Amino acid sequence: MLSQEEAFARIRLLRSPNIGPVTYMQLLARFGDAQAALHALPDLAGRAGRPYEAAAEKRVQAEIVATRKAGARYLFHDSPDYPGLLAHCEGAPPILTFRGDSGILARPAVAIVGARNASAAAVRLAREFAYGLASAGFTVVSGLARGIDGAAHTGALAGGATIGVIASGIDIAYPPEHGALQERIAAEGLLLAEQPPGTEPLARHFPTRNRIIAGLAAGTLVVEAAPKSGSLITARLAGEMGREVMAVPGSPLDPRSHGCNQLIRDGAVLAQSVEDVIELLSGFDGVPGSRFQSEGKGAEPQVRLEEGAEISIAHLLTTAPIAVDELIRQSGTNAPSVQMALLELEIGGRLVRHAGGRVSLA
Amino acid sequence: MLSQEEAFARIRLLRSPNIGPVTYMQLLARFGDAQAALHALPDLAGRAGRPYEAAAEKRVQAEIVATRKAGARYLFHDSPDYPGLLAHCEGAPPILTFRGDSGILARPAVAIVGARNASAAAVRLAREFAYGLASAGFTVVSGLARGIDGAAHTGALAGGATIGVIASGIDIAYPPEHGALQERIAAEGLLLAEQPPGTEPLARHFPTRNRIIAGLAAGTLVVEAAPKSGSLITARLAGEMGREVMAVPGSPLDPRSHGCNQLIRDGAVLAQSVEDVIELLSGFDGVPGSRFQSEGKGAEPQVRLEEGAEISIAHLLTTAPIAVDELIRQSGTNAPSVQMALLELEIGGRLVRHAGGRVSLA
Repeated sequence: MLSQEEAFARIRLLRSPNIGPVTYMQLLARFGDAQAALHALPDLAGRAGRPYEAAAEKRVQAEIVATRKAGARYLFHDSPDYPGLLAHCEGAPPILTFRGDSGILARPAVAIVGARNASAAAVRLAREFAYGLASAGFTVVSGLARGIDGAAHTGALAGGATIGVIASGIDIAYPPEHGALQERIAAEGLLLAEQPPGTEPLARHFPTRNRIIAGLAAGTLVVEAAPKSGSLITARLAGEMGREVMAVPGSPLDPRSHGCNQLIRDGAVLAQSVEDVIELLSGFDGVPGSRFQSEGKGAEPQVRLEEGAEISIAHLLTTAPIAVDELIRQSGTNAPSVQMALLELEIGGRLVRHAGGRVSLA
Repeated sequence: MLSQEEAFARIRLLRSPNIGPVTYMQLLARFGDAQAALHALPDLAGRAGRPYEAAAEKRVQAEIVATRKAGARYLFHDSPDYPGLLAHCEGAPPILTFRGDSGILARPAVAIVGARNASAAAVRLAREFAYGLASAGFTVVSGLARGIDGAAHTGALAGGATIGVIASGIDIAYPPEHGALQERIAAEGLLLAEQPPGTEPLARHFPTRNRIIAGLAAGTLVVEAAPKSGSLITARLAGEMGREVMAVPGSPLDPRSHGCNQLIRDGAVLAQSVEDVIELLSGFDGVPGSRFQSEGKGAEPQVRLEEGAEISIAHLLTTAPIAVDELIRQSGTNAPSVQMALLELEIGGRLVRHAGGRVSLA
């Protein structure tokens, strides 16, 4: 059981400048807990040559009050309720806020996503797939957007369980017309948010929200999506995580089908029926049946740091991203030392982390 | 250049009882030419214990007159015009009749097939795919049926070359409402028939016609097809021949799409556009990019028979089909001797040849 002090320190640590999910986990691994990490932060940042101030305690207190007021609670990465599949993703959110029944996170989940301006036929398909999959015991995960997302949640609520992952804080309804649906999901299913309460849904929050949707599910089903749409990004994230990627085909004469058809050409499994999805996901054991280009990212390995690792590797870095593995090779030193140096640079605001374990100077 | 006598003998040999394409080719290989094979036939058949009479000369003469009257000519398996891809198929027709420009057989070909009761959208797609592919230099092969076939021919004629393969004799228009289209194909493209003139299109002629369509083309594109339809058989034949299998997807809400969607689930390449087809077929070198279950049948190996091979293997056979390879192993003798024995049984009407090089007692 997490002490109130440590829970507070964790929230404060994650809300502090330049601390992303990867740095947060590395700091916890390095210093044992968030309280110790917070204590060490000014010194770490100082080595990178810039003054540093962690998140203000008052702001964190206000966040915790707002979370409670919204009827929400915190879910930490090491809670028994924290979903195992999500925990295995690179950059998984170390802290989530939720409303509703976190117990449904234990059930097998499938994500259903798609276009906001979907055709009536696709909306019907999304509802039918979601209803059938929820009835079969799957939790249907989606993003509460207009169109396919909303239909997926509605269908799933009629058949069983659903999880809504929102890009805003847990206390903000977005899109506004889905306010009632969001309340219903919080009451009958589970509502999840990575951003702290009061956060408006900004454009940059949507890709990180999409990665949670893909990360929660054994597979992602795209129902209708234009080329280059956000739903396709979710599908590609699922592929990169080594999850199943499925798509519902459509006529080439309808441009709204082109995204899904292209996904299938790229190796996603064509899903015609609920049975197709169940057949694929029932056999899911971490190795996807879809041939979608997946880079099969596993969990970040836990890093054990040697005391006194203080080498500077800033001179090896440029603004062009480079793989940390390559950096370790080029540095001629050991991995924990390089990770520690990167941590210092990051907290000092001089490092940017990119997908695929790559880093660059800010 | 084939002598008139030998051409006559070839036609007579192929029209004789119990002589299918495989037996025909084996007899030609065994006896050097059709005249010698015809001479040997009664004796061969006698060994199987039944009297034998080759096709009547009068009937063959009448056929040749009818072929000429229809404005058609014969195409033999060893003619320079005989299409190379078709020649490599198991049981390729050793003699075809044709009207039109046999020169277009030399161009790369793509088959476009689909449902007779196709949707308006699918008919439009078939026409557009055919027009685009013909314009790009492909010969579009189809079967002149209502629906997708007719649209494919029409689109191809507007853009370039087309080949119509009919299940009847070359002098019979089927279906009747495509009589004008058939004449146009004979005038501007190429019309092919395996059956002799005067043959009505019987149900059993369609699968063999479908195998010619698949065999002429580097790949077969199915535009719209119900599950278990003839178009799917053509696609599966193409897959078994090691050719590309492509399908145009459609909404799961339209049952007419289910055949194509299932083909894609089984490994056919999803084709959304003319460019998708060209991209796939331009790289075709005998090894298909589609993962459609193909058994990669090549040409039947030429068999050299030893003189005096007279063993009886009838006792090894039952009415259940068995692979000739297995028969050779079980017989304890060599392949040419077994082939010769099978030839005798077949001509005697006691053997049936099945797909995949299997045989059984009649």
